[in-house]
This record gives sequence, C-alpha cells and structure tokens, in this order.
Amino acid sequence: MVRHALKKRSKKAGLPPGSLVHIGDKKTEAVTANVLDYAEDHCSETALIEIEQCIVYRDMPSITWVDIEGVHDIQVLEKIGQCFGLHPLVMEDILNTDQRPKIEDYGDYLYIVLRMLGNGSESGDISSEQVSLILGKNFVLSIQEGAKGDVFEPVRTRIRSNKGQIRMLGADYLAYSLIDAVVDNYFIILEKIGERVELLEETLISDPGPQTLHLIHNLKREMIYLRKSVWPLREVVSGMQRRDSALIRESTGIYLRDVYDHTIQVIDTVETFRDMLSGMLDIYLSSISNRTNAVMKVLTVIATIFIPLTWIAGVYGMNFKNMPELSWVYGYPAVWVLMIFVAIGMVIYFKIKKWW
Amino acid sequence: MVRHALKKRSKKAGLPPGSLVHIGDKKTEAVTANVLDYAEDHCSETALIEIEQCIVYRDMPSITWVDIEGVHDIQVLEKIGQCFGLHPLVMEDILNTDQRPKIEDYGDYLYIVLRMLGNGSESGDISSEQVSLILGKNFVLSIQEGAKGDVFEPVRTRIRSNKGQIRMLGADYLAYSLIDAVVDNYFIILEKIGERVELLEETLISDPGPQTLHLIHNLKREMIYLRKSVWPLREVVSGMQRRDSALIRESTGIYLRDVYDHTIQVIDTVETFRDMLSGMLDIYLSSISNRTNAVMKVLTVIATIFIPLTWIAGVYGMNFKNMPELSWVYGYPAVWVLMIFVAIGMVIYFKIKKWW
Amino acid sequence: MVRHALKKRSKKAGLPPGSLVHIGDKKTEAVTANVLDYAEDHCSETALIEIEQCIVYRDMPSITWVDIEGVHDIQVLEKIGQCFGLHPLVMEDILNTDQRPKIEDYGDYLYIVLRMLGNGSESGDISSEQVSLILGKNFVLSIQEGAKGDVFEPVRTRIRSNKGQIRMLGADYLAYSLIDAVVDNYFIILEKIGERVELLEETLISDPGPQTLHLIHNLKREMIYLRKSVWPLREVVSGMQRRDSALIRESTGIYLRDVYDHTIQVIDTVETFRDMLSGMLDIYLSSISNRTNAVMKVLTVIATIFIPLTWIAGVYGMNFKNMPELSWVYGYPAVWVLMIFVAIGMVIYFKIKKWW
Amino acid sequence: MVRHALKKRSKKAGLPPGSLVHIGDKKTEAVTANVLDYAEDHCSETALIEIEQCIVYRDMPSITWVDIEGVHDIQVLEKIGQCFGLHPLVMEDILNTDQRPKIEDYGDYLYIVLRMLGNGSESGDISSEQVSLILGKNFVLSIQEGAKGDVFEPVRTRIRSNKGQIRMLGADYLAYSLIDAVVDNYFIILEKIGERVELLEETLISDPGPQTLHLIHNLKREMIYLRKSVWPLREVVSGMQRRDSALIRESTGIYLRDVYDHTIQVIDTVETFRDMLSGMLDIYLSSISNRTNAVMKVLTVIATIFIPLTWIAGVYGMNFKNMPELSWVYGYPAVWVLMIFVAIGMVIYFKIKKWW
Amino acid sequence: MVRHALKKRSKKAGLPPGSLVHIGDKKTEAVTANVLDYAEDHCSETALIEIEQCIVYRDMPSITWVDIEGVHDIQVLEKIGQCFGLHPLVMEDILNTDQRPKIEDYGDYLYIVLRMLGNGSESGDISSEQVSLILGKNFVLSIQEGAKGDVFEPVRTRIRSNKGQIRMLGADYLAYSLIDAVVDNYFIILEKIGERVELLEETLISDPGPQTLHLIHNLKREMIYLRKSVWPLREVVSGMQRRDSALIRESTGIYLRDVYDHTIQVIDTVETFRDMLSGMLDIYLSSISNRTNAVMKVLTVIATIFIPLTWIAGVYGMNFKNMPELSWVYGYPAVWVLMIFVAIGMVIYFKIKKWW
Repeated sequence: MVRHALKKRSKKAGLPPGSLVHIGDKKTEAVTANVLDYAEDHCSETALIEIEQCIVYRDMPSITWVDIEGVHDIQVLEKIGQCFGLHPLVMEDILNTDQRPKIEDYGDYLYIVLRMLGNGSESGDISSEQVSLILGKNFVLSIQEGAKGDVFEPVRTRIRSNKGQIRMLGADYLAYSLIDAVVDNYFIILEKIGERVELLEETLISDPGPQTLHLIHNLKREMIYLRKSVWPLREVVSGMQRRDSALIRESTGIYLRDVYDHTIQVIDTVETFRDMLSGMLDIYLSSISNRTNAVMKVLTVIATIFIPLTWIAGVYGMNFKNMPELSWVYGYPAVWVLMIFVAIGMVIYFKIKKWW
Repeated sequence: MVRHALKKRSKKAGLPPGSLVHIGDKKTEAVTANVLDYAEDHCSETALIEIEQCIVYRDMPSITWVDIEGVHDIQVLEKIGQCFGLHPLVMEDILNTDQRPKIEDYGDYLYIVLRMLGNGSESGDISSEQVSLILGKNFVLSIQEGAKGDVFEPVRTRIRSNKGQIRMLGADYLAYSLIDAVVDNYFIILEKIGERVELLEETLISDPGPQTLHLIHNLKREMIYLRKSVWPLREVVSGMQRRDSALIRESTGIYLRDVYDHTIQVIDTVETFRDMLSGMLDIYLSSISNRTNAVMKVLTVIATIFIPLTWIAGVYGMNFKNMPELSWVYGYPAVWVLMIFVAIGMVIYFKIKKWW
Repeated sequence: MVRHALKKRSKKAGLPPGSLVHIGDKKTEAVTANVLDYAEDHCSETALIEIEQCIVYRDMPSITWVDIEGVHDIQVLEKIGQCFGLHPLVMEDILNTDQRPKIEDYGDYLYIVLRMLGNGSESGDISSEQVSLILGKNFVLSIQEGAKGDVFEPVRTRIRSNKGQIRMLGADYLAYSLIDAVVDNYFIILEKIGERVELLEETLISDPGPQTLHLIHNLKREMIYLRKSVWPLREVVSGMQRRDSALIRESTGIYLRDVYDHTIQVIDTVETFRDMLSGMLDIYLSSISNRTNAVMKVLTVIATIFIPLTWIAGVYGMNFKNMPELSWVYGYPAVWVLMIFVAIGMVIYFKIKKWW
Repeated sequence: MVRHALKKRSKKAGLPPGSLVHIGDKKTEAVTANVLDYAEDHCSETALIEIEQCIVYRDMPSITWVDIEGVHDIQVLEKIGQCFGLHPLVMEDILNTDQRPKIEDYGDYLYIVLRMLGNGSESGDISSEQVSLILGKNFVLSIQEGAKGDVFEPVRTRIRSNKGQIRMLGADYLAYSLIDAVVDNYFIILEKIGERVELLEETLISDPGPQTLHLIHNLKREMIYLRKSVWPLREVVSGMQRRDSALIRESTGIYLRDVYDHTIQVIDTVETFRDMLSGMLDIYLSSISNRTNAVMKVLTVIATIFIPLTWIAGVYGMNFKNMPELSWVYGYPAVWVLMIFVAIGMVIYFKIKKWW
Repeated sequence: MVRHALKKRSKKAGLPPGSLVHIGDKKTEAVTANVLDYAEDHCSETALIEIEQCIVYRDMPSITWVDIEGVHDIQVLEKIGQCFGLHPLVMEDILNTDQRPKIEDYGDYLYIVLRMLGNGSESGDISSEQVSLILGKNFVLSIQEGAKGDVFEPVRTRIRSNKGQIRMLGADYLAYSLIDAVVDNYFIILEKIGERVELLEETLISDPGPQTLHLIHNLKREMIYLRKSVWPLREVVSGMQRRDSALIRESTGIYLRDVYDHTIQVIDTVETFRDMLSGMLDIYLSSISNRTNAVMKVLTVIATIFIPLTWIAGVYGMNFKNMPELSWVYGYPAVWVLMIFVAIGMVIYFKIKKWW
C-alpha cells in the first residue's frame, strides 16, 4: 500500500509546483458532481452535467455542498479550481491522492485533507481513499477519490429530511458533519478489526501455526497504516478548533471538541490493538517453542529408554565362548525382567522429574 | 473489553451529534435517582420517583447531589437533560459509556467523565463503569452506568453524619470528594492486582507452566486497560486545578492538588507493575528454556553413554570365524570391565565439564 | 515493596481528606522530638518531652530545627500540626509514608517530601523511609518515618561545631543542607549497588547460572524503585529554585543548583546501571545458550561417530549362511581397520568444519 | 558511509575555524560553474571560465543562479567566497561535505545545507552528496559536491522554457524550487527502496536464508542513514517558513508549506519502512526456527520409530540357549508382525498428536 | 568507569558544600600552571612557580589564559580560587572530577565543565578527563585533571604564531576555541571507534565467536559513556549562545553556533553507532544459532540414515531357527543392496526437502 502511493509520486518529480497530474490509478468512469443546496427552509439536489454550473451556487446565501467523485479527469478539476478560485497547490494536493490528513488556511477558504477508510474487499484488507474538503464562506466542496460508495450518506439524509439542526447551521457545521462521518466510520473499521483480533486470539490458543504469525503481522501492518491516517487527523481537528478563522463559528467549536474526543478514542484503540498484537506475538512464539519442546522431549524420552535396553540385548548377543548367563535356564527370562525393570525405573524417574 | 466498547459505537454511526442512543448493554432494572440535599445545618435524602422533581433542587441555595444509576432509559435521561439544561453532546456522552476520562467546560457547568473500576467477579477481572459528573453552581449530578454498588458510600456517610467539613463547603468540594473516592478505589484495585502479581511471582519460581504465561499476559492486558483509565484522569484533575472557572473555588484547589498526587501515584504503580510483569516474562521464558535444556542434556548424556557401549557389544556380536577374543577365557569379563570403564570415564568427563 | 505501600493505602479509602490514619507498620517506640535552636552566636539542643514545648521556638528569631522520629503516634503529630499551623492535608501526607517526593507551597511554609534510602539489611536490599520537611520563616520541621538512624548526623555536627557557614544562614539553607544530605546518601547507596553490579559482572563471566539471572532481575527491580524515588526529586529541587517564595532567599539558589546537579548525576547513574544490567541480561542469555549448544554439539558428535560403527558391527553380526567376509582370515582385523578409519575420518571432517 | 564521513573530519582537528580544507574524496576534474541569469523577459546561460566573473551578476536586478559543481579546488571556492562576501564559517561548511541539513541566517544571505541522494550504483546503495545553497537578495548560489549528475535539471528546463511562474518570482522561489527538486528526488529513492522491500518480502516467504537477513539489515541501515538526512531537513524548511528574513517573501511561504508537507511524507514513509523491516526480521527469525524445528522433528520421529524396532531385533539376536521363541515355526514372521505393528502404532500416535 | 566515579563521591558525603576534597585518583606530580598572555601585538608565555603570580594578569587589559594541570593539590587550588574570586561551589566542582558537562553563570564569570576524551591506552578504551573553564572579562582559566597531554596544543600554536584571528578577539573567543578543540577531538575518538566497529563487522561475517559478543557489548557500553559526555555538552553550548551575559560578545555567537552543529553531529554519530551495534548484535545472535542449527541438522541426518540400516542388520542378526532369507544364496548381497537403496533414498529425500 505504501509502495503504491510512492510509485505514483515519481510521475510528478521535476514538474513545477501546481502542475496538475493525476497520480492515482487510472479510471474510466466519468467524474460525477452532486450539488446539495440548502437553507433552513429549502433543500435542492442536482447532479451537475457541466461543472461550470457550480459558479451559480458560489455566491448564493444558502449553504451549498458540492460533492465530486473522481479526480482522474483533470479538465473537470481545473474548471472547479477556477470556479472556486483555488490555489494551484490545493489543486495539486487534490490530485495527489496519497496526502496525509492536514489543514491549510488560504484566507478565503480552509483546505482539509482526510482519509476515508473502506473495508469492502473480501480479504478484509483496509482500503483508503483521500477526501479533500474546501470550506468556504457558504459552501463546502468535497472531492473524493472516487471509489464507489462513501460514508456521507447519513449526512445527506439528515440534510434532505431536515433531521437535527444541520440545515439551521452554516457551512462550518456541514464540514464538521463530514469529518464526523469519516471518524464515525473509523469505529466501524476498528470493530471489524476487533473481530479479527478476537478470532486470531482464539486460533492462537486452539491451533497456532505459521499462518497465525502471518495474520498477526498483517494486522500489525494495518495498525501501522491506520495510525498514519489517524494521528495527523488529531492535529487537523485541534487545528480547526484553535484557528481564529472567520470561517469557523464559535458555536461549532463544541462539536469539533467532540470529534476531537472521538479521534483520541480511535487512536487509543489503535494503540491498544498494537499492544494486544505484540502480546499475541509473544504468546505465539512461546507456544510454538513450547510445542516443539514437548514433542522433542517425549521423543527423546522414548529413545532414551530403548537405548540402554538395546545395549543389554547387544551384550547377550555377543558370541563369547565363555558366557555363563547364556546357559542358565532362567537366563533369558531374567534378562526380560531386567529390561522391564530398567524401562519402568526410567519411566518412573522421568515422571518424578516431570520430564515426561 | 476493548472490542465490546467498539461494538456499541457502530450503532451510532451516521446519526446527528447529540442523538441519544444508549450503546451499553441493555438492562431492565429501572433507573434510580437519589437526591441528597444538604447545607451546614440540614441534610435530607429522597429517592425520586418522577425525575422532574429534580427541578425543585436546582435553584435552592443548599447543595444538591443527584445520583442517578442506570443510563439505559433514554426518556429519563432526556428529562434530566432538560431539567438541568445540559447540552445535547453532554447527553450523548453520558449514554456512550466508553468515554475516556475528560473534563469539558460548558460555562454554566463542568462536565467530567471518570471511570470507576470494580473487581467484583470471581475471576479477578477488572470491570469498568463510566461515571459522569455535572458540576453546577450548587448541585452535582452524578450519573453511573448502573452496575450494582458504587464507591461513593463513604461520601454519603460523611454528608449524612456531618463528618469532616464536607457540609460546610460547596458543590466543587462535593465533586472533589467523588473524584477522590474513585481514585481511592484505584488503590484497592491495585492492591488486589498486587496480590495476584506476588502470587504469580511465587508460582514463577516454584512451578512455571504455560498457565503462568497466560496469567502474565492477562495481567499485562489489565495494566494496559488500567492505564487507559488513569492517564487521562491526570489531565482531568490538573485541568480542574488550572481552570479559571467560577465553579471551582480557590480553597478547593489544594484538595485537587492532593487528588492529583494520588493519580500520579496510581500511574506510578501501574508503570511499576508493567515493568515487573515484563521482568517476569523474561524470567519465565528463560526458566522454561533452562528446564527444557536441563532435560535434553541429561537425556542426551544417557544416550551418549550407551551408544559406545552398544557398539562394543555389537563388535563382539559379529560372526567372524576368526575372532580370537571370543575364545579367551576372560574375554567376556574383560568386555564387561571395558564397558564399565568407558561408562565411568564418560560420566567423570561429563561431570568435570559440568555438563551433567 | 510496592505492594506493601499499596496495602497501607486501603485502610484510608473513604475517609475524608485530612483524616489522620497512620498507614505504615505499627511501631511501639515512643516518638522522639529533638530541637536544635541556633543562631550565629549560640546553639542549644533539647530533647522535647512534651511536644507542645515546640511552640516556644516557633516565634523566636533564631533558627529552630525540630527533628521528629516516628509518625505512628497520631496524638503527638496532631499537637505538632496545631503548634505549627499545618494544613490537614499536610498532616495526612506526613502519615501516608508512601508519598513520592514533592514540594507544595502553603504560603506560610513549604512542604517537601523526600525519600531517604537505607542499605542496612544483610541482603543488600534498599530500604526507603519518607522524610517530610516543613520549611517556615525561621524554622525547619523534619519528620522521619522513624527507622533507626538517619543521614542528617553530619548536618547536626556542622551546626554544633559551627563548621561552614550553616549557622550564619537562614532556615532555607538548613532545608537545603538536609536535602543535600539525603542526595549525598544516594551516592553511597549507588556505590554499594555499583559493587554488586561489578561482582555480578565477574560472576557472569566465570560462572553464570540461574542464580545470576535472579540477581540481575533483583538489581533491575531496585533500579526501578530508585528511579521512582529520584526522578520526582529533580522536579522538587528545580521547583524550589524557580519558586518565588519569600521563604527561599536568592543566595540559597546557587546551592540548590548544586544539589540539582547532584540529582541529575544520580539519575544518570541509575540510567547507566539500567543499561548495564540490560546488557548483562543479554550476555547471560547468550552465554547460557552458547553453553548448552556446546554440550549438545559434542554429545551429538560422539553419538554420530558411534552410530555408523554400530551399524558396521551389526552387519557382521548377521547370520546369513553365505557371508564370505566372515570366513576370511583377516576379515575381523579388516573390520577393525575399517571402523577406525571411519571414526578418524569423521573426527577429521568435524574438526575441519569446526563443529567440534 | 558513516565512518567515511568521520575520517575526513580528523584532517581538520585543531585548525582555526574558517580554515578551508577540503575533506571529501580528492577529485581531479575541474570545478565547473554555470550561471543562469533570468528575469521575466530574458534568460541567459553562461559557463564561467574565470570564477571572478560572478561579480558581474551579483548586483544586477535580474535573478542569478550560480551553480558550482565540485568543492575540491580551494582557490576557486575562496574566490567565490570573496565575490559574494561569505563568512569563513560558511566557506568551511561548504568544504566539510558531511554536514547535516541546516539553515543559518547571516543577515545578507541565508545559508542552507541539503543532502542530495543518488542511487546510481549497481548494488542499489544510496549515495549522498552535500548541496549548499546561498540565498541572497537576487541570487542563489548552489554548490554541489560534484558527483556527476544532479536533480536540478527540471528546474533549469523550467527557467529556460519559461514554464510555470518561476521566472516571474524572486530568488527565494528559485531556492524553494531547488529544495523541492531535492525532496522530490527522495520520493524516487524511496520508490526504489520500496521495490527492494517488496522483493525481499517475497523472498522471505519463498526462500528465506542467511542472505535475507543481511539484506534486511542493509536496508535497515540505509533507513538509519536516510532518516539522518531527512529529519533535520524538516527543521530547515519549517525554519525557512518561520524566519522573518527579508529574503523570503510571504508569497513563497505557501510553497514552503507544501515542501514541508512532502518532507513529512518522506519521514512517514521512512518510518513505515523501518516498521516493516522490523516485522520482516521477526518473520525471518521465526520462519528459520520453524524450518529447523520441522526438520529436527521429522528426523527425530524416524529415529524414534527405529530405535524400539532395533531393540526388538536385538532381543532375538541374543544367544541364550533357552529361548523358546527362536524355535517356534512362526517365531520369525511373528517378530516381523510385531515390528510392523509397533511401527504403524507409533506413526499413528505421532499423527494423532500432530507431531509429524 | 561509572563505579569509579561513584566511589570517589562517598568521601565527601556529609561535608558542608564548598568543602575542598579532591576525590580523584591521588597523584604525586606537582600541579603545573602555564600562563599565556596575549594581545593583538604581543604574546608572552610563562610557567608559574608561585600560583599567586596569577593575580598580576587578572586585571591587565590583555587576554590571559591560565592553564592548570592537576587538581590534586588543594592548597594550590585554594590560592587560585582566592586569586580569581571563585565561589566555593565552583572550587568544589573543579575538584569533583566526575561532573557532567554544564555551564553556570556567576555574574563576574561563567563556569563551564567539559569532558575531554583520550584514547591513549593500548586496549582502545576511552579515558575521560574533566576540564573546567572559567571565563572572566579578559581571562580564561582552564583546569585539567592532569592526565598527561591535552587537546589544546593547536590553540596554543595558533596564539603563539598569531594564526587566524584568535589574538584579535576576546576571552570569549578563546573559551570557544578551547571548547571547539575538545569537540574536534571527539571526532578523532569517534573515528577510532568507527575503525573498531568496521573491524568487528568483518569479524562478525568471517568468524563470529563469544569474543565478538563481548566486543559488541564493550563498544555498546562505551557508547553509553560517550553519550553521557556529549549530550549535556549540547545544552552547554546552546546555553552559551542564548545567555545574555556580557561576557560573550555577539560576534562569538556565530562560532558557538558552529560548535553546536559539531556537537549535534557527534551525537548523531554516537546514535548511529548504537543503532549499528544493535543490528550487529542481532546478526551475531542469529548467525550463532544458524551455525548451531546447521551442525545439528547434518549430524541428525547422519544418525537418521544409519539408524534404519542398523535395524536391518539387527533383523538378520536374530537367531530364529526358521529364517529362510538367511539360507538364500543371494540373501547377504540382497541385504546390502537393500541397505544401499534405503541410504540413497533417504539422502535423496533429504536433498529434495533441502534439509541437508
């Protein structure tokens, strides 16, 4: 996952800053743009065909949320950039879909980068998608990388159905709602990981194998990845709280504090999973070595019992002319008795020493 | 424990902030609300039947402590929220019983989240319950998750019997007393853990086994969990100290400093236990491997002594026509002497080398 | 040691703050109080019989050092508290003899907690005693837990004999002298530990055994304990330096800087010992495994040489009718030659491969 | 690589500060100096023959970029120093080609040290070259150590072809462009390392060997080295941002923030690789020990099956006169049946126990 | 080395601060004092016989460097202290030759402690000597512990020969030059350590043994020691830079920044060596275990091949009356063929499984 992100970067090396080069996977679907324009008393939803239509909404007093899916069509993005007056570096960052979460203040608007996680694939691997938010005076522009599906559906429903106070509040509250939706989604992802951790824990006790080790390491790596997505988010949210930008009203601060709390909770959980996985690695390694030792010990004990017995048999297999025992009537049974005694004695000795 | 908390969260994903959804375990007991109203010269105790009755106490000059057990009845909590004018986010946090300790200033009141630990179960596992405190001008609202029993009984007794100066001081001193009771309880929990650590240490020397490893790891995990509860508490208490809220009188600062000290001491002890458990893990691993090595060594030595002897016996078991030794009168005893010499020689050699 | 401290705490859980409960080991010796009253030109020493006599000294212009040994008699301590006007929380902390070092400013006086280490026992374990210092305008109250002996004798001697400038300077210099005496004592303790570390290091090379491991772990645990005593002391001393309390004259600052330096040096040494012990643990583990491997290797080589030889003997022990070798005149010597060659060949091969 | 850097230093020990001694590898190529002088409307490129010609450009209003390759000719560098009025310590640092990245403000100019990485060699090892930038009012002086090739070609192309806004902006933007080129190059290096990490990961699963261990350690060491180059760079860039030097216009700040972001991303990736390599080391060690254990187990099982069988054969090889079994008609087949049963029984037992 | 330093300290425990007790190794050589008095136009050098002669230089306008070797003669040092008006605590610290580097401002003068490293002994162990610098208005007093040789010779030469600008600048520049000389010397020490690390690395690959482990641990310990000397130095130099003492001119700041850079570089290198040594320890441990495993595996394989063969031989060594194979004409050769087949089959199987 990491290497993938890097590969994309090298296409851009050497270009002037602000050059628009899409470095993600090539896609062929058209970029879609949905506009949700609402105020306390109305709410309209449009799928834009010509991206230039955006401009209509920019200066309207109502709150406008333009949601764009797909960043692979550079022409479309350039138009959006012109329409909303975005800085070339912002445009570049929107296209570089391997950004870490960050917040940047461009005066007229705030530029926020988030990472939206998905867990759609069968293998349970986490997929990650970059979401760029542009928070202006009365609009929010959200640009998703364009994987199918997003986590904003509940926010849309709330706006459409006028649930909660979202329609009564400004664009900053909308931006908060989107960030909150992304963070809430982390809890769902963590829950699924939690299930895998629990399953792994059971496997660890019932039937540990080399497979278990790989699963532990896969989960550990996902934790590294998750941490990279969530840690900077904390700074983003606290940055929004502290920032004395006119774009964020004081009343929204209380909600940002809430989402900050959630972020901390996510980080806490990720750290706890890391600690648990480290503990599981220790248990795995020591259970594997315990098992091997148990096998080796029992086998060695068996070998150790029969080696002296074999020697006894060997002694009476010698061909010396003068071996009186061989002619004794009870010589043969006596040797059997001897051998049985030795064997039982060794077993008892091993049992006493708890070696068996 | 961690996964459990997460599971509860996903019920809420996508709802607007402030939505009241109880995400803890469903309970059927009724929510109980006890009111303790006191001033220097009087003290009355009432079990509320209708939660709206609270409102009477809110504006009385005497100090009122409303103690609510159970957060699973949303109607009841909504009424409380309206009664005391709590922010929807506070209400939400009260219901989300997996919060980390925190303090939030809402102007009229402070909202404090604590985690109260219990050690009731037979297995010795630590259970954890969220306690929300609302500290207003002359009231304290404490909302427990509702597990049976709490750690506030001594505070109640002190108020009832007018012991100490609690009745003479304000609501902030009551809030301090409740936090102090929670922290004092940590010492009792740590004591019990200390006993288990000590027991484990003895087992480690007398009879280490795979069970010991699991016990060490269980304790380690509990330490991770405890740490998560106690670390943020430190910030909560120091936050209360520093905060220039009119709700906390200067005279209470000295008591908060005291409870802060206790928190640090709890953290110190948790860290010491962690260090001790790490050391015990090292000792366990090395004692297991020492033991296995000891077994293997003795067994290998036995095998090694008998293998050459078996060879000697094998040599004189060969059927060559022309083997002069076989016909010697003292051939057989000589071989016995040889074998005894070889065996003794090897034993001596092994003893000298300290291999046995 | 840790668990012990905790055990004591639970006696207090639920009591109002400032409740005087001695939670240390019960003792029967009477609490002793010695007063050393001095100025530039005089010095008188009295053993107080009635503790109320203290009050005489409190308001005298001369410097008074009241040294109390034993905190198990609550009546005595209550009288002292009243006499010097100490806050109930201070009284409580004096009795709770498991405090971490700290400094608290109560306006009229500074309350300082130190931990005085002792190394009296035969086993070399470090014992620890709490020393509380109350620094007032012209008095210092030192309250020791009451183990026999302390580290303040040189300070007493200096006052009695008017050595150095101690009599010319104020109570803050006396407090500094006491702290300095405690820190100087740490160097002696560290020296003794240093000797044990060195001894251990020699044992590690000459004769490592399971005992060595336990010694390393014991020392490691003592380092954890020492660290807990010394780390907060650093903050105490730097806190005294920074504090703009009228009780500490500027001229004393230079001496506090000196004792701060010493504290840092103690911490440095503790950290170095920790690093050394970690290194020793590594060496121990690898030397143990080297040794086991050496044993196993030699034994395996011996077994490996004789197994083919035994097989050769076995071959000529077969009872086939038609085995021409058996009838050869030189068959038997030839087999001996063969076996000797095989044995020598294998030894040479093992030597070349450096396996033996 | 580290030792190499140190070796060079000792030539200088004891000389007065500002002594110009080249401590890098001796080179024989002539030092080359290229001048790129440009303004919005013109752009001229000259290869300087006499270094003193620089002086012409110093005071011209157009932006001048003097790019010097090679620091081994002290005379040339001294002339440059005089020409641009550089401080002797700057001159010294330019020659000491083992500096860590840093920024120093000398009033008239900023002195910036970067490390440019190369990955030219066949073995894939990273080579590192020091680049010193002197940012003056309207000139940038870049001094490279002089390995063939650099990462500034795209910047040159942009100036020549007037692509982007580089010609319109000042010397600070040029300096930013050079730093950006260096950081962009890190992404390419990281990509190549990413490929090696991935390859290593495949080898780790398919065919781990001692070679794998060395590869992991080599990559780990390169990560240490990379980290040393990149970490201080972060401070350099944030230092440029914060610095209230008249040399850096506010409009450039936004670009520096961008390059700062990239630096953070590089650091993040380096840390991720380090974590991945640590994980791979764990997997390697456990896979090696798994493999050895598997071999040992199977071999031990084989030995264990045949040892009892050999004993049975030994028993009936004894020469007792009175061994009735030997005379039984079906004695021999019965022994075979016995041996086969024992062997199969043990195999089944081992299979049940999952030891085989 | 650590224990040694501690031992010395206990001589001093209990003495009043400022007591002059030399706690280093007793030496018998006389303390030598050399005076180098210089200004832009003159330079005189004197070996003082009577230490009181110092006083002449104290108030002269020219810069005076008094260099004292040996701190074991307390009378001499007391005279120096009186002569330059040094604080008793400074005198004490000069004698306590186990100080960590520090800087203290006494108004009239700065007191700086450095640790000068030596690498003179054959074993390559680092020796360490305390150097105290007293920087006054126009004098520098340097007091060395008195091991033969120091690192200041190049500074002396520069003053004598008027090389560089040292004679033109003040006492603060002289102090800087001495610190710079000490830091430059660290590079030489690190270089020698670098050579040992490289040698060790080669040994690690060619012929690792228990000796290698001890060498790694010795180097690791030296790194701990070096770190203790260098880390606080960083604070000393940055403290000199920041300090608004009239004793340090602004023009010297630029040189202090340079020496600060060097200190950081030394710390960086020490950390890199530590990382490398940790990596080498890992490689050592895994190469040792690889080797042992290789030996065990081959030996086990040999044993495993011959055990079944021995059993076959044993079968035909049985004495059953009725063993038809024994009478077959080709029975004996057939058994040989069988045994050869079995042996070859197993070898092939082992080769296929890559166990051999």
